[in-house]
Amino acid sequence: MSATKAYAAKSATTPIEPFSINRRDPKPHDVEIEILYCGVCHSDLHTARNEWGGTIYPVVPGHEIVGRVTRVGDHVKKFKAGDLAGVGCLVDSCRECENCKEGLEQYCENGMVGTYNAQEKDGSGITYGGYSKQIVAHEDFVLSISDKLPLQGVAPLLCAGITTYSPLRYWEVGKGDKVGILGLGGLGHMGVKLAVSFGAEVTMLSHTASKEADAKKLGAHKFILTSDEAQVKAAENYFDFILDTVSASHDYNMYLGMLKTNGIMTCVGAPPTPAQIPAFNLIMKRKSIGGSLIGGIPETQEMLDYCAEHNIVSDVEVINIKDINEAYERMLKGDVRYRFVIDMATL
Amino acid sequence: MSATKAYAAKSATTPIEPFSINRRDPKPHDVEIEILYCGVCHSDLHTARNEWGGTIYPVVPGHEIVGRVTRVGDHVKKFKAGDLAGVGCLVDSCRECENCKEGLEQYCENGMVGTYNAQEKDGSGITYGGYSKQIVAHEDFVLSISDKLPLQGVAPLLCAGITTYSPLRYWEVGKGDKVGILGLGGLGHMGVKLAVSFGAEVTMLSHTASKEADAKKLGAHKFILTSDEAQVKAAENYFDFILDTVSASHDYNMYLGMLKTNGIMTCVGAPPTPAQIPAFNLIMKRKSIGGSLIGGIPETQEMLDYCAEHNIVSDVEVINIKDINEAYERMLKGDVRYRFVIDMATL
Repeated sequence: MSATKAYAAKSATTPIEPFSINRRDPKPHDVEIEILYCGVCHSDLHTARNEWGGTIYPVVPGHEIVGRVTRVGDHVKKFKAGDLAGVGCLVDSCRECENCKEGLEQYCENGMVGTYNAQEKDGSGITYGGYSKQIVAHEDFVLSISDKLPLQGVAPLLCAGITTYSPLRYWEVGKGDKVGILGLGGLGHMGVKLAVSFGAEVTMLSHTASKEADAKKLGAHKFILTSDEAQVKAAENYFDFILDTVSASHDYNMYLGMLKTNGIMTCVGAPPTPAQIPAFNLIMKRKSIGGSLIGGIPETQEMLDYCAEHNIVSDVEVINIKDINEAYERMLKGDVRYRFVIDMATL
Repeated sequence: MSATKAYAAKSATTPIEPFSINRRDPKPHDVEIEILYCGVCHSDLHTARNEWGGTIYPVVPGHEIVGRVTRVGDHVKKFKAGDLAGVGCLVDSCRECENCKEGLEQYCENGMVGTYNAQEKDGSGITYGGYSKQIVAHEDFVLSISDKLPLQGVAPLLCAGITTYSPLRYWEVGKGDKVGILGLGGLGHMGVKLAVSFGAEVTMLSHTASKEADAKKLGAHKFILTSDEAQVKAAENYFDFILDTVSASHDYNMYLGMLKTNGIMTCVGAPPTPAQIPAFNLIMKRKSIGGSLIGGIPETQEMLDYCAEHNIVSDVEVINIKDINEAYERMLKGDVRYRFVIDMATL
């Protein structure tokens, strides 16, 4: 075991503060990584403040982790000391269920193990995330990171990237498709970049007029101001696919109305109130609404490789870890373009 | 114009009663059909009683029509006098929009013309349905009916049949799939027969224990009593596809819980209250909920041909048209196995 510097929330109402955790020594299939950058996901804040319930304190958030391998277990073949490596939202799963066998570990039927705030499968304790100096994880849940891209921009790919990449791929978004991206935050900005790179015509859907220029800078072809009834009306029956990244409560039916026949809207954000959808709004044009959760390990690697090849990274603001609480407050106000990333050298 | 005997509702609160309508003489592309049987769909009752709003009185319901061609217009090539023919839920559409061109007339972007209670495209008046001695329709909306099957059992295929056939085909239900059919009425019983014929493992989902034997007689392989918590729990993560034929208000989330990863639930019934769905229930296993409306003309013909080939008809109770009001009351109680069909010789 090695004592590792970290930052933790000790309760729902106290700030994130310095803390010390123990990381296990690498077992035969483990990879030990010195963390260089860790993205700040809204889930970190939800968990730190117990907004979803179930937080086990102290909690060390962070699941957008990139760093450099420092040690590997005897049986590890995929990594060696000095390699760049990443850890995303999960560090274990049963590996035996149908979903795990298909590389859909995020949907593990026996429960995947989150990178933080989860029980280790072997009963050895609670997982601690990336707001820390190092992490030790089984090689099956460690991703290879290319050295072609700036690492601080790669970190958010591990959650924001794969969360948008996976549904765009699953629902086969590509050339000729008209795609709406709802919400321009950490997820939404990756959704725009990825959908554009897949050849789709991409429209940012936002109720904030000032986001038009931002969205277009990211590559969006069009912008619809959703607070403008005329623009919404004009967009009826327009989209093949809408990726809904919003986790605040909102009316799904306005966006369903923008789908054309056979259109699909997929949610990656989980608002606190249920979607209220008259069946009629789905029936009349054979529309669907679906959901998608991050992505499995093989697809996460595929996404990282794709982004390296296509020069796609997250737009980030790098912060000192001592400023994490201020970053949370700014994140709540949407005051970040588009992801905070902690420079772990500041720990 | 020819005066035609019919039955109509003259207001939302009066019974269906004898009435006389005028049918146009066949125009060059029209087919005149002597109606032999007309199925009784729950939509007939909703419309007669103005439960969806928008009913134009007097209304002549009926959109599950089979009969024999009596006259055809000069340009009609597909039909001749003496042929069996059918008319389903729609008698016209714009024929120019993308959906019409793809044979998805039910989703016509300029509004399809329903077989009853709709404005004719040429402004000539209101459409009157199948509770009548004859009907005249454009050949493009007239279906060929095989003489292999009993006509009274074929009539309900024009709505209940295609409404279940279309989503089962669109979502590619077949061999190896575990399919749940929710609700055992006119739609549900066709859903069971069709899904079984497509090679799926079919489970009837019902809150009425006595329906188990009925469902199995129709070919269902399994039965889940949805009022039994243990049975519901045991069915978690089980189905690839659920066809929801229920138009009473119900909790969609129980059924979403029975879907496995990537599972899809499709609604063909439209309850009066919106579905309330936490996004989480879709996200956690990449589930979707969709809707589907009847089917287009080419697919309706495909379905009729398929049913003729595979000897599939609706289970019906043939009634005298003078008993239509009693039939409505029995339909409301679910006291029909599984579709009333009017013998139009009784008119």
